[in-house]
Amino acid sequence: MAKIAVDMMGGDDAPHIVLEAVEKAVHDFDDLEIILFGDEKQYHLNHPRIEMRHTSEAISMEDEPVRAIKRKKDSSMVRMAEAVKNGEAEACVSAGNTGALMSAGLFIVGRLPGVARPALVVTLPTVNGKGVVFLDVGANADAKAEHLYQNAVLGHIYAQKVRDIAKPRVALLNIGTEAQKGNSLTKEAFRLMSESELFHFVGNIEAKMLMEDEADVIVTDGFTGNMVLKNLEGIAKSFGKILKNDLLRKVKNKLATLVMKRDIKRIAKQLDYSEYGGSVLLGLDGIVVKAHGSSNAKAFYSAIRQAKIASETRIVESMREKVGNIHE
Amino acid sequence: MAKIAVDMMGGDDAPHIVLEAVEKAVHDFDDLEIILFGDEKQYHLNHPRIEMRHTSEAISMEDEPVRAIKRKKDSSMVRMAEAVKNGEAEACVSAGNTGALMSAGLFIVGRLPGVARPALVVTLPTVNGKGVVFLDVGANADAKAEHLYQNAVLGHIYAQKVRDIAKPRVALLNIGTEAQKGNSLTKEAFRLMSESELFHFVGNIEAKMLMEDEADVIVTDGFTGNMVLKNLEGIAKSFGKILKNDLLRKVKNKLATLVMKRDIKRIAKQLDYSEYGGSVLLGLDGIVVKAHGSSNAKAFYSAIRQAKIASETRIVESMREKVGNIHE
Repeated sequence: MAKIAVDMMGGDDAPHIVLEAVEKAVHDFDDLEIILFGDEKQYHLNHPRIEMRHTSEAISMEDEPVRAIKRKKDSSMVRMAEAVKNGEAEACVSAGNTGALMSAGLFIVGRLPGVARPALVVTLPTVNGKGVVFLDVGANADAKAEHLYQNAVLGHIYAQKVRDIAKPRVALLNIGTEAQKGNSLTKEAFRLMSESELFHFVGNIEAKMLMEDEADVIVTDGFTGNMVLKNLEGIAKSFGKILKNDLLRKVKNKLATLVMKRDIKRIAKQLDYSEYGGSVLLGLDGIVVKAHGSSNAKAFYSAIRQAKIASETRIVESMREKVGNIHE
Repeated sequence: MAKIAVDMMGGDDAPHIVLEAVEKAVHDFDDLEIILFGDEKQYHLNHPRIEMRHTSEAISMEDEPVRAIKRKKDSSMVRMAEAVKNGEAEACVSAGNTGALMSAGLFIVGRLPGVARPALVVTLPTVNGKGVVFLDVGANADAKAEHLYQNAVLGHIYAQKVRDIAKPRVALLNIGTEAQKGNSLTKEAFRLMSESELFHFVGNIEAKMLMEDEADVIVTDGFTGNMVLKNLEGIAKSFGKILKNDLLRKVKNKLATLVMKRDIKRIAKQLDYSEYGGSVLLGLDGIVVKAHGSSNAKAFYSAIRQAKIASETRIVESMREKVGNIHE
């Protein structure tokens, strides 16, 4: 039985999309129990495997992350993280303030021994639909080479356990494929990674090959990763605009226009990484999943399922073991 | 009369696309003189404003940049850069080895007094077709905050002179819009830039807004800039693949398919930054323009035109003056 704590109050469309997702999840999975944290007056479900716990506060998108976590002790997010900390739940899921959730992970759930800096991981879409594990997308903006090395180990375990890839190809995001390319950070990280026996290192990968299925895990620092992720998001949107303005204007037939609009929407969805579930904060003594702030019920459901898989495949235990063996 | 030195031997399709572009350029502009460096046996034009100078060597894409520039003294690229150094030409254009061209700029043409690190600038497409000046895209991978500040000054002058924007909006590429966001590099650069009176600073810009016409100049370090540029390139390609596989497969009518293919090609072109001319190495005592390695004649022609505008608007003189006034 997987036990997952859920923040009912986080995200643009909370609590109703959260409740819809939770209801579907307990319906679909017989081996799932949910502990829900939030305003009980807004709770309308009735299910033996959902436990509602009332909280009097909520953390907003505007709250300063660390301060919010330290002061709003009875917020749904803090209480949810505490449930992981004290062992009542193995994993937690929130669509709320990203910075606050990272702080809750760091200060409440806590780091695994040997992990210098946790990393935020997402699964990016690839052209062939397989997807690629990409980290760090924003937990650690000032990374050192040993943090990138640690990200490789965490990403390797995540790809093996959650994405079921026996021998993941681990690559380093860089400005060229040759070993001597890059800035001082990536040059040093390349050296560390190529000497490792903890994962299968396939070398540097350029940003233009991200979606081409050349690796199963792509490692970078939190600044660059966040940049690339937002770039993808923005380009998909800008591209959609251009397509709409330009391509659709020319199609005279109304039915054809409708069909094409639907197709463009579907393709844009295929490129939308939030469809692959949430992002996961790795390196903690528990599983913390961040659903996109603008999640709909389906996306939040994916994030719950992702938390469940991570819990069942015991990624935290694997990471504790492997990261403890990193010689720095 | 603008005098431009051209490397006839650089690029995937040299020399014939270079010769085609040069021929069109001297035809279109009465006030343009070209000095062409390369293998005279492959030269077949005959024009009073083109001077052919024979060189016995060429630098290849595989050559190690600094070594190539130091050893291949009679290469077309070295001789071209020397023509700028000794005042015979105001600007030079090459589609050859990017690293070698940067080295030629640095070691032969030389830096302007006060410029710590030259920066490579491109004009990126925007959704509204206006375009945005983006630098550094790869000259300086290990940048410090004062280099980003200097890039802002160089980008400001470039936008004013070459793109004819009276008061360019200068933004800093960052992972959030708030002043306190970023890594230690961008936080410090933000502070320096917001205190400056040399340009109109509009704050941080996120990578997802790159193409949305929110700024006229976007400043970043060479590592991040190169990453974003290659990401754009790659996404445009991956997107094109998905569109082709998915959208076109469904259109049964043959004529409609042809029309759509043409449209997709045109849109892909609109997103292709090389259509906006070459990239320019700023901060040197002369104008060095890099045309894309896979340039066709039209793209190389754009690069020549760009070099001509940069020469006529005297950007080097403006940069010498303004950069000399930076207090560090």
